[in-house]
Amino acid sequence: MKIIIVGAEGDIGQAVVAELGDRHDILTAGRHSGDVTVDMTDRTSVDAMYKRIGRIDAVISTAGEVHFGNLADFTDETFMVGLRSKVWGQVNLVLGGMTYLKDRGSFTVTSGVLDRDPIPMGVGAATANGALGGFVVGSAIEMPRGLRINVVSPGLLNVSKPRYGDWFPGHETVSSERVGRAYAKSVEGAITGKVIIVE
Amino acid sequence: MKIIIVGAEGDIGQAVVAELGDRHDILTAGRHSGDVTVDMTDRTSVDAMYKRIGRIDAVISTAGEVHFGNLADFTDETFMVGLRSKVWGQVNLVLGGMTYLKDRGSFTVTSGVLDRDPIPMGVGAATANGALGGFVVGSAIEMPRGLRINVVSPGLLNVSKPRYGDWFPGHETVSSERVGRAYAKSVEGAITGKVIIVE
Repeated sequence: MKIIIVGAEGDIGQAVVAELGDRHDILTAGRHSGDVTVDMTDRTSVDAMYKRIGRIDAVISTAGEVHFGNLADFTDETFMVGLRSKVWGQVNLVLGGMTYLKDRGSFTVTSGVLDRDPIPMGVGAATANGALGGFVVGSAIEMPRGLRINVVSPGLLNVSKPRYGDWFPGHETVSSERVGRAYAKSVEGAITGKVIIVE
Repeated sequence: MKIIIVGAEGDIGQAVVAELGDRHDILTAGRHSGDVTVDMTDRTSVDAMYKRIGRIDAVISTAGEVHFGNLADFTDETFMVGLRSKVWGQVNLVLGGMTYLKDRGSFTVTSGVLDRDPIPMGVGAATANGALGGFVVGSAIEMPRGLRINVVSPGLLNVSKPRYGDWFPGHETVSSERVGRAYAKSVEGAITGKVIIVE
């Protein structure tokens, strides 16, 4: 398959490339790096990316920012970071990609553990993750031509623990191999409209 | 208890007033009607509302707009309607109200059925509903002074069926009485961080 991975340089993106890279034709995209660059919050930029790469079998996104901070300190601006970037950005990749995906192609976006196993300062992420779960359930039933969509919701990765582990007291971490397989399940399998939990 | 209900004129809001009105001191708020008016997407307006009504025991929101439309037709603008109004608007009522709620007071916001039982053209609502579920899980663990927060997720109300039923083929509707009791459970009970499903 020809697969584009947006956010391929991150810990999750690298796990996906490690899992799928040997048996598929992988294109990488990022804001400042990759085979193509893209600002996923901007439809013009997303359209330009798809136009450049042409017809594909799968779109994987492991990208999107959220703001971390104390609940009481969230403002309009900081709260919208996750909704604009992690939610709308990934949704934009889906909406823009619908005409470029081959029949029965798939979208796989990424959420995370914090809407089911919250941490202090994580409400922006929890909200964005929940939104993405709702989005795949709602959008799967409207996909044309057998297109599929799922969201992978991984726990904290082993490799991310040195940077973020202090924020996740007592959380069990997950291996990059298990995270990669969740994307393989979405891309190479047949499920749609699912939240694929890795924990 | 002294309770403010934002969105009291809607079908769900009326169900809440019918359930709680006899045994509590109810204040109503709406964009253009009620004891006080409020634009819940605007923190200045939210702060002015709380300042006017003073200390309260519970905040209930049954308000928030979403855009309905075909998945492929969603744009940045239409997709953000639900995230700005139904999500951020209700979150804003929570953030603004935290200092006005009495100890062990409660917030109860409103989502809906479409993130678990989707309909065509409903992806904006599905996304907003999922976001609100994530928000209450994430925010409940950071509430000070024993404050609580839950979200009620009702199916289509019997009374709403004449207007919206054609969009919800085969959906079982729920009575206003059952919907009202879900808010009573949140306000008068002790749970927090829960999605209270009415179906």
